[in-house]
Amino acid sequence: MASNSFGKFFTLTTFGESHGDCVGGVIDGVPSNFILNLNLINEEFKKLVPDYKTFFTKRKETNLPIFLSGIKNSKTLGSPIAFTIKNDDYKSKDYNELEDVFRPSHADYTYLKKYGIRDANGGGRASARALAPIVVAGSIAKQFLKSLNIEINAYTSQIADIKLDKHYSKLDINNKNNNPVVCPDDKKANEMEKHLEDISVKGDSTGGVVSCIIKNVTVGLGDPLFEKLNANLAKAMFSINAVRGFEIGSGFKGTEKNGSTQNDNFIINNNKIKTSTNNSGGIQGGISNGEDIYFNVGFKPVSSIGKEQKTISVEKKSVNIKIKGRHDACCVPRAVPIVEAMAAMVMFDSFLQCNALNIHE
Amino acid sequence: MASNSFGKFFTLTTFGESHGDCVGGVIDGVPSNFILNLNLINEEFKKLVPDYKTFFTKRKETNLPIFLSGIKNSKTLGSPIAFTIKNDDYKSKDYNELEDVFRPSHADYTYLKKYGIRDANGGGRASARALAPIVVAGSIAKQFLKSLNIEINAYTSQIADIKLDKHYSKLDINNKNNNPVVCPDDKKANEMEKHLEDISVKGDSTGGVVSCIIKNVTVGLGDPLFEKLNANLAKAMFSINAVRGFEIGSGFKGTEKNGSTQNDNFIINNNKIKTSTNNSGGIQGGISNGEDIYFNVGFKPVSSIGKEQKTISVEKKSVNIKIKGRHDACCVPRAVPIVEAMAAMVMFDSFLQCNALNIHE
Amino acid sequence: MASNSFGKFFTLTTFGESHGDCVGGVIDGVPSNFILNLNLINEEFKKLVPDYKTFFTKRKETNLPIFLSGIKNSKTLGSPIAFTIKNDDYKSKDYNELEDVFRPSHADYTYLKKYGIRDANGGGRASARALAPIVVAGSIAKQFLKSLNIEINAYTSQIADIKLDKHYSKLDINNKNNNPVVCPDDKKANEMEKHLEDISVKGDSTGGVVSCIIKNVTVGLGDPLFEKLNANLAKAMFSINAVRGFEIGSGFKGTEKNGSTQNDNFIINNNKIKTSTNNSGGIQGGISNGEDIYFNVGFKPVSSIGKEQKTISVEKKSVNIKIKGRHDACCVPRAVPIVEAMAAMVMFDSFLQCNALNIHE
Amino acid sequence: MASNSFGKFFTLTTFGESHGDCVGGVIDGVPSNFILNLNLINEEFKKLVPDYKTFFTKRKETNLPIFLSGIKNSKTLGSPIAFTIKNDDYKSKDYNELEDVFRPSHADYTYLKKYGIRDANGGGRASARALAPIVVAGSIAKQFLKSLNIEINAYTSQIADIKLDKHYSKLDINNKNNNPVVCPDDKKANEMEKHLEDISVKGDSTGGVVSCIIKNVTVGLGDPLFEKLNANLAKAMFSINAVRGFEIGSGFKGTEKNGSTQNDNFIINNNKIKTSTNNSGGIQGGISNGEDIYFNVGFKPVSSIGKEQKTISVEKKSVNIKIKGRHDACCVPRAVPIVEAMAAMVMFDSFLQCNALNIHE
Repeated sequence: MASNSFGKFFTLTTFGESHGDCVGGVIDGVPSNFILNLNLINEEFKKLVPDYKTFFTKRKETNLPIFLSGIKNSKTLGSPIAFTIKNDDYKSKDYNELEDVFRPSHADYTYLKKYGIRDANGGGRASARALAPIVVAGSIAKQFLKSLNIEINAYTSQIADIKLDKHYSKLDINNKNNNPVVCPDDKKANEMEKHLEDISVKGDSTGGVVSCIIKNVTVGLGDPLFEKLNANLAKAMFSINAVRGFEIGSGFKGTEKNGSTQNDNFIINNNKIKTSTNNSGGIQGGISNGEDIYFNVGFKPVSSIGKEQKTISVEKKSVNIKIKGRHDACCVPRAVPIVEAMAAMVMFDSFLQCNALNIHE
Repeated sequence: MASNSFGKFFTLTTFGESHGDCVGGVIDGVPSNFILNLNLINEEFKKLVPDYKTFFTKRKETNLPIFLSGIKNSKTLGSPIAFTIKNDDYKSKDYNELEDVFRPSHADYTYLKKYGIRDANGGGRASARALAPIVVAGSIAKQFLKSLNIEINAYTSQIADIKLDKHYSKLDINNKNNNPVVCPDDKKANEMEKHLEDISVKGDSTGGVVSCIIKNVTVGLGDPLFEKLNANLAKAMFSINAVRGFEIGSGFKGTEKNGSTQNDNFIINNNKIKTSTNNSGGIQGGISNGEDIYFNVGFKPVSSIGKEQKTISVEKKSVNIKIKGRHDACCVPRAVPIVEAMAAMVMFDSFLQCNALNIHE
Repeated sequence: MASNSFGKFFTLTTFGESHGDCVGGVIDGVPSNFILNLNLINEEFKKLVPDYKTFFTKRKETNLPIFLSGIKNSKTLGSPIAFTIKNDDYKSKDYNELEDVFRPSHADYTYLKKYGIRDANGGGRASARALAPIVVAGSIAKQFLKSLNIEINAYTSQIADIKLDKHYSKLDINNKNNNPVVCPDDKKANEMEKHLEDISVKGDSTGGVVSCIIKNVTVGLGDPLFEKLNANLAKAMFSINAVRGFEIGSGFKGTEKNGSTQNDNFIINNNKIKTSTNNSGGIQGGISNGEDIYFNVGFKPVSSIGKEQKTISVEKKSVNIKIKGRHDACCVPRAVPIVEAMAAMVMFDSFLQCNALNIHE
Repeated sequence: MASNSFGKFFTLTTFGESHGDCVGGVIDGVPSNFILNLNLINEEFKKLVPDYKTFFTKRKETNLPIFLSGIKNSKTLGSPIAFTIKNDDYKSKDYNELEDVFRPSHADYTYLKKYGIRDANGGGRASARALAPIVVAGSIAKQFLKSLNIEINAYTSQIADIKLDKHYSKLDINNKNNNPVVCPDDKKANEMEKHLEDISVKGDSTGGVVSCIIKNVTVGLGDPLFEKLNANLAKAMFSINAVRGFEIGSGFKGTEKNGSTQNDNFIINNNKIKTSTNNSGGIQGGISNGEDIYFNVGFKPVSSIGKEQKTISVEKKSVNIKIKGRHDACCVPRAVPIVEAMAAMVMFDSFLQCNALNIHE
């Protein structure tokens, strides 16, 4: 039931199995006559495939998206933008021996039960590879948002138990590009790197948190009941593999506080209505209030590890496995562009929905 | 854009302003010829309006839902079930003085900016009152789920910084009905009660966490990409007012751990495939694996407090306000039935979607 | 699966059985802060219940819609507009004897097979009574369209084999209000009336055609592939009970002609782009071109007739029946406001969808 | 707003411009583990490109669909089936001279007004080429339907004013494959062929009608209000370019008759409930009753003609044009597989929706 589509207005439909010929997508609801910077899409896309580091997957997908429709001379035609991304580094031998096994904390078992068939090689649609098309659509959404002045910036704020302890406003977020863990704090980034190298050597993995900031948001995006902007962001983030937690504004910490300290008082600043604090995270009653939207997305440790694990085979026999293949010690740094992309799709979709009802301006 | 509807198959559409004549809903996608226990719906509904306690709102809505269609002699007809719930305790004087003010951390400002009009009395659609219809639809979903053996149970696991420290399996969850804070641990419940009385006297409020357990889940619910079962639960929970966090399975704590300790090994138990641990929270690759689904929902402190607050008026003037009205010191205990109801709608909707594709059994 | 909702943006969800307590609806996606003329809605609504004539049903529903939400002091709040319409003239005795019978060309059989339960009295949701909420939503849509200058006007153009033979531009359409058959041509109207009286006396019924004209349409409504404006109009019209045909522009007659005579040449008129003819019926490539949209909707004869008919009972026994009840000799005149209402919903929905993508004006 | 997608459950999303690199589609909601006959898809597809005849377009697209995902070893994986169809016969010179002209009865003008940009070559998304992906999805739907015993068969029943005069049950429909006009009556087919050759020589075109029969339909498909099976068939057919009329069962002719002659009496036949006549066309109250569904789809004459026509340029100047390019004298024979494909998608989608609610069998 269109379970491979995301967004009501600006809609991405994705396809492709991890170890099939390609993955790809179709983007519908693209305003026409807009000049896209295709290089920016490629640059964004390359962030998914960081330079080689011991703690990152050895799978190197070098192919860039190929656009099949919807764009001519860099201009959007208003018709759907379809694209494919070839899967080039196909090494299914590593997977063959796992074909009859339910890997712990993978989707092997649920897939087989749901579909009665399992495309063992690389996890089919459950693989992170299936998320690549999201970055393409997100990058296009970002370019539209930028024309509306809205900016989205995510970064690694935690790996294992190494956490940024500063408020986001104290960080120079662009600093995140200086290190492979995509963390704006050099010292913490250094710790994170070392930790990842450590556990990588041990054949283990870990989790972490991506934080995301959205600035210059139009007031009025989102709806009060079932299309709250925060609810759509929550769903978007949980659509990313391995996500186990989402919190916005003061989040879970705020749940321990009192109303008198958590409430955001309205003030006048430069003749504009602002709030003195922003524990609401830029959304009140499901609707953006113009303050920064900020949220955290928690990722569980990567399930594929080199260490030996006990599990069972499809024939219900106990087996011990070591997963060879090519896997990250931590998915968090590579999840940063995906978090941004999903956020961008939600924000632009909300913008279009809000725009529809402005009929008498 | 149907922003007042929830669910694709089992769909609830709600209506009504907090201080209008009534709130209500229409439920579409109800399988026909099913015998509903209407008393159960009423009992569920009454949980929204707990007995008087100093720390709960003085607003006492005693009206029960009135069904207008879709049911005859307790049987579902397959046609939409519409219902209204009269608003009886209408005291808009308390709100009148707030008509020209943006209450801190309320939706007053975002509403006015979005709609250009604000139904000041009681918050319009932003009020918790607008959630009442959810409990009716959720209670119907629960009865269908029960016929499929699926059970949903939520409870208060934290108020302010008072937290349950036991694993949910060690709790007798039904114990939650013995105290007004809906917490299954008597000792903690006692502490919570006292704390709420304290802050209530001070005119303040606090937040907390609702935990929810879903048992006997059919394997195979949810989809791998954009309709992950966890993603739909996340959206559902963030559709509840005041929610600021959602985590499933080992959640944010699990993000700090290693894969080798977090992975859930598959085992055979009574000839059935189970997992030895359940850090995944019953969902792998977006699809239910038959283990318990469990998650936490974090609520911010109630925004309406008796303490004096600084804010501004619609005319951009600084004002000091004290919110009289009738408000909870903490919304968490009253949110428990709403969490269950939203979860039930998601689970039944997922079940129906999954069922659609089983065409050759 | 939301099968009782119509429209993507401006969405009507209806409920209520023919002989239950009431019918009603919820309209979502209503732009806020718009002043509605509630009298106009009532006037529109009354057209559904024409003055007594021998050839019209004796069921006289005099209740007007009662609005429960979404409107305050005649202004739309932006929240859903819910309304109920009480069923007052409940005479189920006439139906009781039909409870165990499948009436010919009614939905009795398909209902029982689909739902396993049949609310025999009056046809449940299959009754024309279930269409009443459409007129309320359509009347609201019309008021929005009028503010955009778009006007919709339908009339009876055929009853039995009595057909208007003039082009619609030669008719004074407002003339339709002078006679009970809602036909703008006095002479034909007279013939139609007489024919209806004749067949009414014989306990028989007949069919006919409603024609509809939409003027001053914004250019650009509708989409090229699967949301063609004509496709949505077709679906809308076929959502009305008893409709068996829909044709737009030159319709079926045009299928016999040559391209050289059917093509609409573009011309300049008053410095505006127009077409010299309008065989396309105002829509080209699924998108409105600004010319008049006009179409015909064919209705089969009313199924409920007083004449004796052979059919079978639920127990598969042959029976002869005469349907007493209260039924029209022809549904066409009463379908006129419903055709207008469905057309208005489609047009306004298309307008909002088109509006959403205009982001940089 | 997902305006390039069709179907709620079994959903086709299409992409590609007429003279771009390719057209294609993504099919979501495909039940898993079903063995597809890929040859059948190709055979179906080839019907779109009939052998050369003077009255058919000289555009010869010989490329077959290439599947990118969702199928492995002919088995459906349950993941989306994506495919592309290369456009090979690219002759845009013929179109270049039409770049600045609004061709009569084409979508050139509405496109430019809607999108502010027009991909002149071949009509972009407005071209019949954009319908090719429908045949692929329809062929897959047909294979699922066949496994449920449901069969769909369409044929040419009218070209210009040459019409089949027999009831469909008197025709040997498979006979349609013996002639290029896809008409089961040899004599009429011969007349049609001659007529098409005639008007083709004159540089003109004509319209006609496709009739479609659906047999062995499950009782209970479709919904009573806004998802009537006939309403969804109507929308589906109007999604095909050049369609101007749709009628089902006794259609427009039935509107002239009396209820006493049009009603379909229920009878018992071989202990099964049947109707003695089938003026309802297999659908009563929007729901299939198990009798044959049959309907007519009227197509206007092809807009592209060789004859000289008057029109205007984008700069609002009068021009005379002759459309060279490659165009059919009549689109009806080539529309036959598209009518079948759209019907198949509607039927299978309805089946899945109906199936979802059967939860306790």
